Amino acid sequence: MEPYRLTATQAVSQIQAGTLTVLAYAWAHLDWELVLRRARELDAILPDERGPLHGVVVGVKDVIYTKDMPTQHNSLIYKDDAPALDTGCVTILRSSGARIFGKTTTTEFAATIASPATRNPHDPARTPGGSSAGSGAAVGDFQVPIALGTQTGGSTIRPASFNGVYALKPTWGAISREGLKIYSLTLDTLGLYARIAADLELLGGVLGLSDDETDSDRSGNSEAKGVSGMRFAVLKNPRAAFPEPGPGSQHAIAKGVALLREHGATMPAWHGTVMATDGRVAFLPESRAHRDRLDEQLAGQVENKGGFTHKARLAALGGIAALHPRVDEVLQGYEALLTPSVPDEAPVGFENTGSAAFNSVWTALHVPVVNVPGFQGENGLPRRRFTRGAPVS
Amino acid sequence: MEPYRLTATQAVSQIQAGTLTVLAYAWAHLDWELVLRRARELDAILPDERGPLHGVVVGVKDVIYTKDMPTQHNSLIYKDDAPALDTGCVTILRSSGARIFGKTTTTEFAATIASPATRNPHDPARTPGGSSAGSGAAVGDFQVPIALGTQTGGSTIRPASFNGVYALKPTWGAISREGLKIYSLTLDTLGLYARIAADLELLGGVLGLSDDETDSDRSGNSEAKGVSGMRFAVLKNPRAAFPEPGPGSQHAIAKGVALLREHGATMPAWHGTVMATDGRVAFLPESRAHRDRLDEQLAGQVENKGGFTHKARLAALGGIAALHPRVDEVLQGYEALLTPSVPDEAPVGFENTGSAAFNSVWTALHVPVVNVPGFQGENGLPRRRFTRGAPVS
Repeated sequence: MEPYRLTATQAVSQIQAGTLTVLAYAWAHLDWELVLRRARELDAILPDERGPLHGVVVGVKDVIYTKDMPTQHNSLIYKDDAPALDTGCVTILRSSGARIFGKTTTTEFAATIASPATRNPHDPARTPGGSSAGSGAAVGDFQVPIALGTQTGGSTIRPASFNGVYALKPTWGAISREGLKIYSLTLDTLGLYARIAADLELLGGVLGLSDDETDSDRSGNSEAKGVSGMRFAVLKNPRAAFPEPGPGSQHAIAKGVALLREHGATMPAWHGTVMATDGRVAFLPESRAHRDRLDEQLAGQVENKGGFTHKARLAALGGIAALHPRVDEVLQGYEALLTPSVPDEAPVGFENTGSAAFNSVWTALHVPVVNVPGFQGENGLPRRRFTRGAPVS
Repeated sequence: MEPYRLTATQAVSQIQAGTLTVLAYAWAHLDWELVLRRARELDAILPDERGPLHGVVVGVKDVIYTKDMPTQHNSLIYKDDAPALDTGCVTILRSSGARIFGKTTTTEFAATIASPATRNPHDPARTPGGSSAGSGAAVGDFQVPIALGTQTGGSTIRPASFNGVYALKPTWGAISREGLKIYSLTLDTLGLYARIAADLELLGGVLGLSDDETDSDRSGNSEAKGVSGMRFAVLKNPRAAFPEPGPGSQHAIAKGVALLREHGATMPAWHGTVMATDGRVAFLPESRAHRDRLDEQLAGQVENKGGFTHKARLAALGGIAALHPRVDEVLQGYEALLTPSVPDEAPVGFENTGSAAFNSVWTALHVPVVNVPGFQGENGLPRRRFTRGAPVS
């Protein structure tokens, strides 16, 4: 098998067995010299001194600082900016022997909706999703076996689904967010990408994810083997009961909402309220220093065009926080809850990276979420390209 | 008056009036060339193009990244490290015309208890407090009129009290924390220092602090003038009802706690649980890459020597979050609540920066806190050196 088709798990095992050197595995187009130099350094390390990701290349979303590469946030303000700073998770990856292959594309500050230049590897006419567009596409396109993204609404899980790969949004706060550009402190979460579940487990373990309860502690069932005997929940989607409303109905609803707001009523959209009010604080520095080079939507958040009050913000933060223990209590009876990652296959075009309708609630609830590639839309997208790491035609 | 004795408000007003140039005000010992160069640049700016902090020098705690100076966190790991990155609040300050005077000392990662080299300007045998030791001392010693610190337990308010200056720990999340080294996402808060209240207001305003309710909205009393008619709460300290226990009693309590823990009981110390479990995640990167140069207490947090479970962490986070709306409700009937900042004057010696007993709860509750210098201990510390910005003998 060509080295580029290897999963992280396969690469680790072949490098350990001595049948693959890091150098041979080291293709690159973004930072060839750097990645090659690091490969030579790694091949010189004695086998028993090698880390758990020895030699594996990792794509890193370009809102995550890396000391030897630019970090530009897809922002005109930070074009060619290259602070010599390693994010906490990058420090861990480097000390585990991983090679940072390059920086992957993102929507502006991982906070806007237009796709960056990246195309969907399954269909170049479609968006790879966002905001972690490049990480999802690079893993889906076999350019790297694993990658890092972030999620504030659906920014990790949605691209995973559109590109047909696995992803994990871990429990909020379980991995250091040191050195990730901030959009929202209570929503932003590091995300992990891989083509197989074992690679997610490998990467998550290296980054310190661990449980202190055994499976039988959780399920109360020590007899379970495989999934037999395990309990799963399925979330029935309330939206599925209704067809998509047409333009007339949508206009009428929008007008109703505007009228109600005008007369002082509120609609408690907690996730949106937290994101907008956190964005107001997060992008104030950029707005003060470089208003003309900041995305108009983000500048609008800074200027509080949505008219959010401090009271509304506190109510949203408090409302979400009060749900955390209640949802944990409901979920603790199950191994997992099944719910769609996206409404459907990746949309055609690049104006919009797709809907986060199925993601925002779980981001706000801080629970871990895994995207398991499985669905195909009416155009057969994403195509099934991997089974346990091996490509299928 | 010598320029170094000016408050920020006085400096702004004299520079605006043309009676003081930025250059004349520009003493420095840490970054003289840089501060001087910036002074010349600022003096060349036309009066109507000047920012609200034009020319004012600011001390910045050394866990806050600044693009043109080292950021070392008082850590052996980051000695001489200088990532070219401006923290969000530093970006705002620079675009307001402020000059970053230098970096102020901190305990290691603003997370340990031993004082750095800084002495208390009121008595060099005593600690200036921590972890924002340098910012509190530099403002108290007239080296800068304003400074930035951070607070996770009592790291802003305690040094303010020990150095006899004003400080503000704003509402959590009200100012961007982009570029502040992370200890705890839910506790860390930027802190502001000044010698007079007007300077805190000036600095807070520049950093975007604002209310969307008027005083009469809050108090329901539109007739209030000055403090007449305002309502204040006073927190009676439960500890005041008891004398300090002696060594025998303390030993007995410690043994009881250890025995209860050993048999599976828990004592819900929510702030400590959140700080320890956040620290476990925050310092994992440093531990993985440079275990030998990390403080032993922090390495212990990473290794979870306290034996905190995920369940205990979630209970602490949930318990604190559930208190937020309840405390907001109690406090909304008052302009402010009065409570001590510290147990007493700064302790002699440098092994310990003092107790955060009166601070941690407010940090966890996310409410804004102001230190108003007023108290003096039995040794007359801190000495009263300022009234409305003018030194008194």
